[in-house]
Amino acid sequence: MLLNQINSPADLKKLTVSEMETLAAEIRGFLIEKLSRTGGHLAPNLGVVELTLALHYMFDSPTDKFIFDVGHQSYVHKILTGRKERFDTLRKYKGLCGYVKMSESEHDVWEAGHSSTSLSAAMGMAISRDLKGEDNKIVAIIGDGALTGGMALEAMNHIGHERKNLTVVLNDNEMSIAPNVGALHNYLSKIRTDKHYHKAKEELEGLLKRIPAIGGTLAKTAERLKDSLKYLFVSGVWFEELGFTYFGPVDGHNLSQLLETFRQAEKVNGPVLIHVITVKGKGYSPAEEDSQAWHGGGPYKIESGEYVKAVGPKMYTEIFGDALIELAEKDERIVAVTPAMPSGSGLLKFADKFPKRMIDVGIAEQHAATLCAALALEGMKPVFAVYSTFMQRSYDQIVHDICRQNTNVVFAIDRAGFVGADGETHQGVYDIAFMRSIPNMVLMMPKDENELRNMMKTAIDYNEGPIAVRYPRLNGLGVKMDKTMKPIPIGTWETVREGEKFAILAAGAPMLELAQQTAELLKTEGIQPRIVNARFLKPLDENMLMELYEGGYHMLTLEEGAVRGGFGSAVLEFYAERGLYGVKVKPIGIPDYFVEHGSPKEQRQEVGLTPERIVTELKSMLPRRRQRA
Amino acid sequence: MLLNQINSPADLKKLTVSEMETLAAEIRGFLIEKLSRTGGHLAPNLGVVELTLALHYMFDSPTDKFIFDVGHQSYVHKILTGRKERFDTLRKYKGLCGYVKMSESEHDVWEAGHSSTSLSAAMGMAISRDLKGEDNKIVAIIGDGALTGGMALEAMNHIGHERKNLTVVLNDNEMSIAPNVGALHNYLSKIRTDKHYHKAKEELEGLLKRIPAIGGTLAKTAERLKDSLKYLFVSGVWFEELGFTYFGPVDGHNLSQLLETFRQAEKVNGPVLIHVITVKGKGYSPAEEDSQAWHGGGPYKIESGEYVKAVGPKMYTEIFGDALIELAEKDERIVAVTPAMPSGSGLLKFADKFPKRMIDVGIAEQHAATLCAALALEGMKPVFAVYSTFMQRSYDQIVHDICRQNTNVVFAIDRAGFVGADGETHQGVYDIAFMRSIPNMVLMMPKDENELRNMMKTAIDYNEGPIAVRYPRLNGLGVKMDKTMKPIPIGTWETVREGEKFAILAAGAPMLELAQQTAELLKTEGIQPRIVNARFLKPLDENMLMELYEGGYHMLTLEEGAVRGGFGSAVLEFYAERGLYGVKVKPIGIPDYFVEHGSPKEQRQEVGLTPERIVTELKSMLPRRRQRA
Repeated sequence: MLLNQINSPADLKKLTVSEMETLAAEIRGFLIEKLSRTGGHLAPNLGVVELTLALHYMFDSPTDKFIFDVGHQSYVHKILTGRKERFDTLRKYKGLCGYVKMSESEHDVWEAGHSSTSLSAAMGMAISRDLKGEDNKIVAIIGDGALTGGMALEAMNHIGHERKNLTVVLNDNEMSIAPNVGALHNYLSKIRTDKHYHKAKEELEGLLKRIPAIGGTLAKTAERLKDSLKYLFVSGVWFEELGFTYFGPVDGHNLSQLLETFRQAEKVNGPVLIHVITVKGKGYSPAEEDSQAWHGGGPYKIESGEYVKAVGPKMYTEIFGDALIELAEKDERIVAVTPAMPSGSGLLKFADKFPKRMIDVGIAEQHAATLCAALALEGMKPVFAVYSTFMQRSYDQIVHDICRQNTNVVFAIDRAGFVGADGETHQGVYDIAFMRSIPNMVLMMPKDENELRNMMKTAIDYNEGPIAVRYPRLNGLGVKMDKTMKPIPIGTWETVREGEKFAILAAGAPMLELAQQTAELLKTEGIQPRIVNARFLKPLDENMLMELYEGGYHMLTLEEGAVRGGFGSAVLEFYAERGLYGVKVKPIGIPDYFVEHGSPKEQRQEVGLTPERIVTELKSMLPRRRQRA
Repeated sequence: MLLNQINSPADLKKLTVSEMETLAAEIRGFLIEKLSRTGGHLAPNLGVVELTLALHYMFDSPTDKFIFDVGHQSYVHKILTGRKERFDTLRKYKGLCGYVKMSESEHDVWEAGHSSTSLSAAMGMAISRDLKGEDNKIVAIIGDGALTGGMALEAMNHIGHERKNLTVVLNDNEMSIAPNVGALHNYLSKIRTDKHYHKAKEELEGLLKRIPAIGGTLAKTAERLKDSLKYLFVSGVWFEELGFTYFGPVDGHNLSQLLETFRQAEKVNGPVLIHVITVKGKGYSPAEEDSQAWHGGGPYKIESGEYVKAVGPKMYTEIFGDALIELAEKDERIVAVTPAMPSGSGLLKFADKFPKRMIDVGIAEQHAATLCAALALEGMKPVFAVYSTFMQRSYDQIVHDICRQNTNVVFAIDRAGFVGADGETHQGVYDIAFMRSIPNMVLMMPKDENELRNMMKTAIDYNEGPIAVRYPRLNGLGVKMDKTMKPIPIGTWETVREGEKFAILAAGAPMLELAQQTAELLKTEGIQPRIVNARFLKPLDENMLMELYEGGYHMLTLEEGAVRGGFGSAVLEFYAERGLYGVKVKPIGIPDYFVEHGSPKEQRQEVGLTPERIVTELKSMLPRRRQRA
């Protein structure tokens, strides 16, 4: 195995092109085998094997800097930079991160889990380099999907203007996670498919010579024509107009072509964009055939190309998608809006059923949110289906367009709370804190999949402004489902277990389960806490809060969200604003740091969202020696 | 006066072109006169007089919908839609809003104060229209500056792909607020200045005929050439590649040309972009000559073209700019980053002094933030100078790139708190709540301009992660300034007035002043509250909080920020997490709704940030009949 000899980029540079081709095949085998057991982003990484080899061959990492947009396509880079032995721990607790991670290697210089940041990062590094008078190379590797994210275009506008020396490798596989959409995508397709583009340039020279010499104003025009034509027949005029020198398209699985293009590009002053065509899933036929399904996932059987089936009830994501179809059948106002996540958000069936009411805007969370505001103003009922972590991209649009104009937008916030293996870049843990501080917002979280359905009904029926449902990346609990969905009165909680002295106010399914486990532990000690399904995080159930106060309960709030500014502090505010000072409320949530990858269970364990901890916290609320009135 | 006869768009449609030209002049006179007394966005509105007339002449508002990007250029629209009598109240409390406002008129269909939302709004309205089977027209009017905002490009990508019928009017005045930057700007300049573009198209036909008939492969190429050339000589190929039909450039002060172009554009199926060249400040020479200064401002003298000088100490903005220069002279790492606000952020002098270390990225807050993260990773000390309200656009980048990677980015958050006349779209009131919930963030607010300087020094010296200073849109207090800046220990507060029983924890200058006024009011009653300069909003001063607890103080927190999740709830969390339940803390801030335009004083009055209210609140903390331990 050549792969065994490769422990750093220096080892790679000793190989011939033909040896690198062999190595590429070995790496594919390695990835297919390792990921079949750990899971991970198989298809994206199979697509960039040759590209990553070419990059490490041509450039000198870490002096030269590679910035992988999103970073889930950095596995080959990790293999080449001394981390191949750690692949059995990929995406596991304390194991190899599924994204670029600076603490793992000096070759990792920029971390990302959200898309479209790489061009800004590259520009920042280029400006720093130039101010410091250094001369290293900077290379951003960005997918065609990520390029549609607004901030990538903002960065291009800046880079092209300043004409900094840096290289953008556009990894064009016609996909983000789902098949790509957008005018820019259409444009790239045109370049890819129009073979004339490539031939025409040479033929052109001959043709121009045939234009007879002419005088007068036409002479000038002819001169100009020649210039313009050259320009036209370089593909990628769209990028050229933004100040980039365009190369491509290049076959991203042809090492010689890649290396030759990098050599050409090296001679250019100013920013360069190299358009590389790759096939997502290359070399593993199940992944080539359905790269959306194989974008990322769990363990699979190599031979059959089947994922190891998860057992258990339907996931919340699917319950949401099914509920939306049911609701949309009766309510023509409903449209679904997704930023490039039709599958991840459980909307594929909806899209089949209501193609005209399914709006996939590409990776464009800002546009998606404002689009929803406008749809709502026109009487539609937009459902913005978005992961909690990606919704962060539309914070300003939520404040300024959705909430300030008090529009009837429904948020379906998926992956709320710990997300597991994707780790810190993807945790959905800030939405409670930031959503509840925005006026007009209603924010809910269900105790189970049946309640999720009822909350969807609640949201669709609500016509007084924005309303959000957040739900976790988990299977439902397998509870009995009501035949028909029925709305829940806004701002009402529910006591799910009677008790005395203590009350646990739990936000959403995993926290209610934790509360129940806590209650079970306490049984032996004769303590029976009341458990409240605090399903509205905003507005709070003021009646129940007053009742709990009157009843002299010691309260503990539980949320899978940042404890700073979260649900717990909403409860604290409630009592403090009313001058009800004596009440005991203990807020428990995710402490103030970024929690890394692992299983959600391990993540909860790490931050103390465990029954044992809750028991301790509850007991600590009992009167102690030194207590102040 | 023709203007007297115009009370609705219907009245306008009766006029001839020549009468409209007269009307345009009258409107300019009206604006120059009215705004000389109220202040407002003079230059942007003088630039769109003919354009707005042409729009209302050609389209049928409110059936047809006008979406003004940002909306500060909607004054002419307001004049034409029955609101001219209200211009004496412009931007005043309960008066005419300086932006588009749905509650004012059925002709106002989309509100905005932040830029680049109009294309998403137009797309949402177009989708709704088509789903409902209606056929009204939708027109977005967007500046060339706003077009560089990422979300505008996200929207173009979507619109061009779906080929919806809608019209984008690109109001190109080469400015956003400051002169525009960016590759897209360069591209637009090229179109504007290259007169060949316009002539060449006609000349081309003749030239092509001279190419002799040819056979073989060249014949095909020649055919293709003819097609391509037509395409090339339509200006605006960049927009055409995105799926728009491009018209222009058109002289935006020539009514006949404008109307003719709108008529042409009407025939086109799919999205249309009309490139209109306007002069910001047109018709008022001081504004034409310095449109940056005349973008928006206070009252002025018409004859001399001078703003009525504000009296009082330097504004915080200027103090910040001066301090940054001083610091940058000694510290080469410092670079300033602004999203198109060099003047508003007090950085013009810095730019003069350190042109290479001044980075204006255009309207691109997302890119700006991530750029800062990269600059910091490379050892620079980026200072992201940004208004609180616009910083919302970079929320995700602050979480994901700046804080998660724990980069040494300095935030200079201007316009924190109430902003006065700009009103609800511009209030800087959410930053405390959203910044404090993000791990690794340090957040400060100074009690006066001298402390702002020391906080800048603190921020520059701090090398353990991101750190932010927020300051209000106000004059300083005129305090004595220290000769040299000295850093403040992180997380330390300061008692500025000793007292007993009560403590007011005030966040920043205006709130400290309010606390002092409260103390004065209470003097007569023999109550002396201790006043604390709570200058670190994160981390809190844990020692002082413990001391206040031990001392049995009744505490009241004061902040000019959203009370939901704000500084007050941070203090509540502090005690609750430590199980110190008996303590009395009353959080006072901005209640949970959007506060409209007026003076900051009126805005404070409205929400109860007044000494009288604080006195009442303090007294309410004294033991009452019914009090619970």
